[in-house]
Amino acid sequence: MRVLGVDPGLTRCGVGVGDGAPGRALMLVDVEVIRTASTSPLGDRLLSIESALEDAVRRHEPHAIAVEQVFSQHNVRTVMGTAQASGVAALVAARHGLSLALHTPSEVKAAVSGNGRADKAQVAAMVTRLLRLDARPRPADASDALALAICHVWRGSTQNRLAAATAQRRDAAKVASGTSGGG
Amino acid sequence: MRVLGVDPGLTRCGVGVGDGAPGRALMLVDVEVIRTASTSPLGDRLLSIESALEDAVRRHEPHAIAVEQVFSQHNVRTVMGTAQASGVAALVAARHGLSLALHTPSEVKAAVSGNGRADKAQVAAMVTRLLRLDARPRPADASDALALAICHVWRGSTQNRLAAATAQRRDAAKVASGTSGGG
Repeated sequence: MRVLGVDPGLTRCGVGVGDGAPGRALMLVDVEVIRTASTSPLGDRLLSIESALEDAVRRHEPHAIAVEQVFSQHNVRTVMGTAQASGVAALVAARHGLSLALHTPSEVKAAVSGNGRADKAQVAAMVTRLLRLDARPRPADASDALALAICHVWRGSTQNRLAAATAQRRDAAKVASGTSGGG
Repeated sequence: MRVLGVDPGLTRCGVGVGDGAPGRALMLVDVEVIRTASTSPLGDRLLSIESALEDAVRRHEPHAIAVEQVFSQHNVRTVMGTAQASGVAALVAARHGLSLALHTPSEVKAAVSGNGRADKAQVAAMVTRLLRLDARPRPADASDALALAICHVWRGSTQNRLAAATAQRRDAAKVASGTSGGG
């Protein structure tokens, strides 16, 4: 299954796309960081994020979108922006009929490193190793977005198996009707 | 100027539209409450809110959108949803090139009642009186959305005057090109 991971944020929003299946090797499809200027109006910033996510979904046709679950114990201003960027990701997922999963930071850390309290460097190192990359994805938002995608592929929940089954049916239908690939 | 006020929320999102100018009488244009089921997936709920706001903007052609500024001192879960719903309002405003204003709850209370600490009942009573309505708008989200619109019209800030000037130019251009009304 192909998962698009989103590390939500207004200033930097990480987007990482990976292919894989529980217990199998993972493959990097794409990684990018959407940036918006803190001097731009809020609506324009959200519009840029929406447009970049729509574009990523159209290009990569993921089966699911995994977003970091936002908590409010951090800085108030940052959390509002993070919640709004994650809302945009939820909106894009719903618009394309994609399943949306929210994973907490500790679920993500535990999935890639075995330690729910791993630091940023450890997560980045494991993402690099698991995807067999030559260098660590930078900035941290890029690495975190890929960690989210890996976490979602590997958690192998019922939800995942349902999404994978739906994806298989969708791909089979495409092959049957001769409409595989982008559109 | 016509203002669309939004009291953001996932379960109930108030939308109130009013016409007016600083120091002049106000007129109610429309008021509604967008409701989404707490059992629906987050993305679907945001999609419903987006669609209802897009519809309201198309029908009423406001000059500005005023949204309640979200603070995170309340319940964590509620605040996340409120931030996401307000993000959708910001997105819709940006998409239509409308100015977006954020007003704090105390600014709104002070604008309609003269008291920044007024309670819900007092705000509802003043909204009813200022718009010369026969009954209080219910639920409170409807009344709060109208209070936001009134606050925005009356604050008469530089931002408002700019939006009003832009609106006048836009309306003048419409009349000149013979394309007034909806489209």
